[in-house]
Amino acid sequence: MKKSALLLSVLAIGACSPTDSGSLANSSETSVNANPLPSWNTGPSRDAIVDFVQRTTTPGSPDFIPVPERIATFDNDGCLWSEQPIYFQLAFAIDRSQMLAAHNPELAENPVLKALASGDEQALAAVTEHDLVELVAATHSGMTLEEFQDVVANWFAVTRHPRFNVPYNQLIYQPMLELLDYLRANEFKTFIVSGGGIDFLRVFAEQAYGIPPEQVVGSMGDTKFEIRDGNPVLIKQPGINFVDDKEGKPVGIARFIGRRPVFAFGNSDGDLQMLQYTAGGDGARFMGYVHHDDADREWAYDRDSHIGRLDVGLDEANERGWTVVSMKDEWAKIYPGEGLP
Amino acid sequence: MKKSALLLSVLAIGACSPTDSGSLANSSETSVNANPLPSWNTGPSRDAIVDFVQRTTTPGSPDFIPVPERIATFDNDGCLWSEQPIYFQLAFAIDRSQMLAAHNPELAENPVLKALASGDEQALAAVTEHDLVELVAATHSGMTLEEFQDVVANWFAVTRHPRFNVPYNQLIYQPMLELLDYLRANEFKTFIVSGGGIDFLRVFAEQAYGIPPEQVVGSMGDTKFEIRDGNPVLIKQPGINFVDDKEGKPVGIARFIGRRPVFAFGNSDGDLQMLQYTAGGDGARFMGYVHHDDADREWAYDRDSHIGRLDVGLDEANERGWTVVSMKDEWAKIYPGEGLP
Repeated sequence: MKKSALLLSVLAIGACSPTDSGSLANSSETSVNANPLPSWNTGPSRDAIVDFVQRTTTPGSPDFIPVPERIATFDNDGCLWSEQPIYFQLAFAIDRSQMLAAHNPELAENPVLKALASGDEQALAAVTEHDLVELVAATHSGMTLEEFQDVVANWFAVTRHPRFNVPYNQLIYQPMLELLDYLRANEFKTFIVSGGGIDFLRVFAEQAYGIPPEQVVGSMGDTKFEIRDGNPVLIKQPGINFVDDKEGKPVGIARFIGRRPVFAFGNSDGDLQMLQYTAGGDGARFMGYVHHDDADREWAYDRDSHIGRLDVGLDEANERGWTVVSMKDEWAKIYPGEGLP
Repeated sequence: MKKSALLLSVLAIGACSPTDSGSLANSSETSVNANPLPSWNTGPSRDAIVDFVQRTTTPGSPDFIPVPERIATFDNDGCLWSEQPIYFQLAFAIDRSQMLAAHNPELAENPVLKALASGDEQALAAVTEHDLVELVAATHSGMTLEEFQDVVANWFAVTRHPRFNVPYNQLIYQPMLELLDYLRANEFKTFIVSGGGIDFLRVFAEQAYGIPPEQVVGSMGDTKFEIRDGNPVLIKQPGINFVDDKEGKPVGIARFIGRRPVFAFGNSDGDLQMLQYTAGGDGARFMGYVHHDDADREWAYDRDSHIGRLDVGLDEANERGWTVVSMKDEWAKIYPGEGLP
């Protein structure tokens, strides 16, 4: 794969706690298990996680899960990183559209792009992850995958989040990084299952979360194989092929992973079907929701939010005794960086 | 996941050399590297494989490949197991269609199924892997994924190959099992990238090859998420969603794996685009073809065969110096079982 120097340098800046899914996780197994989840305050969520991991990985335990079946799936937006004031991929799409429209008068007249570029709050709030993936596919069709990766990596390098003034890929959740490490140290295989675009996610997921491209499931457009100037490449196509949200999440899991997860974490109604599917298997299961209730350090939103609405899912989680994490009460730190909450 | 006792017992019968992709491979690393590829005769293919692995895994070597980029992809039919006298999945599809037609007069009148059931050689030879996946999707739509897995597992348990009179999943290639082990012992991640049906492949690939479901890429129908009798399940749909053959192979690789392979093996023109895509990356690369030239112990076919035709690919392999394995001269043993060649 041709990775440009830019992409490599951006990935090297990257984010924190990059644990390779394989050997590194194993070598740090002892230390991670000696003091798991240091940024999680003592409380019901931390207890439930540690209890689940110990029950399912102790040989002879009635809840023991064989290693190949230790599949753990995580939503991304609002679960592994922040999603406010707008989905981070939407910020990317707006920036890119404006840049492209400057050289393309036709694109500049596109009503969706105009609405987005205007910054109109209602227009922005109405954009779904589906719209986003379609918009990104439309504005980047004809590019090779590698060219698109460079574009995304460059955007991460030069853009800052409006509230925290750091690159977007630093606004990942320290407690969730520790959870990923803890699961991998106990031989769970960690996957992202996101409504966001798979090609966008794969640019930063390995460095940010230690989740390699082959363990990222997301929404996607089509690609086409071509020999271009003698080089065999994959070209991004307009249109959408698969929406990995709501009912699409279990479908994406079956398609990409081929096994029902035993552990799943989300933060919105869009994750409910993934959690239901996880809960529906035999044996020990863990279903968790991150609840955004910390307006001071992050954001507070749930039932009435356009972004990451958690309403039906919150009721079902409470009824069924799933873990609901209070960011405010249960997370000692939100982001890994110095000077961030 | 609800796995029936039947499925579990069939998997336990299974095939040979089941190496889990993770920990087992690591624990056997020393012994595998001390005597790699015992069923490969000394010759150009064995030399090329060992040379590639040593060059790309020795720290400081100019050809060193970091562990996360050690992606190895394998075709299945004719590359990891036999594909004669007909694709094994076609034998499954015919058996199933006949069984289903006995209870479904409409299906019994389907001209494709009638032609297949007649055993007419021309009709069978014209069936592509695409047709197959479509046929299997059509005849199994409405089932849950788990029900389908049970059907496939049962078929493997009760059916025998017409020439060798053993279960089909014992006709896997011993030298390729050793190659998979050798690569994994050197921290390559091994994937199947097959034109065959992904749900069919995943029933036997883990036990047969040590390749877990999440590392199987194949052709596929659609699935739909439903709550059925209170259980969240995935239902197989009619129709075809993705054909993982020819130009589809690099597309499937990009979609499922998200990284360009550095090592790829096939046996037919249907694998050529995968090999071209692999060859097109920077740095050290390995491209290989299994050449079926052993009519005594297996089968001999290439340029004129309907199944597994190797024509354009053979020319390109010879021109570009890719490895072409003579089964007759370079493989000391074909199948793992006692009493088999």
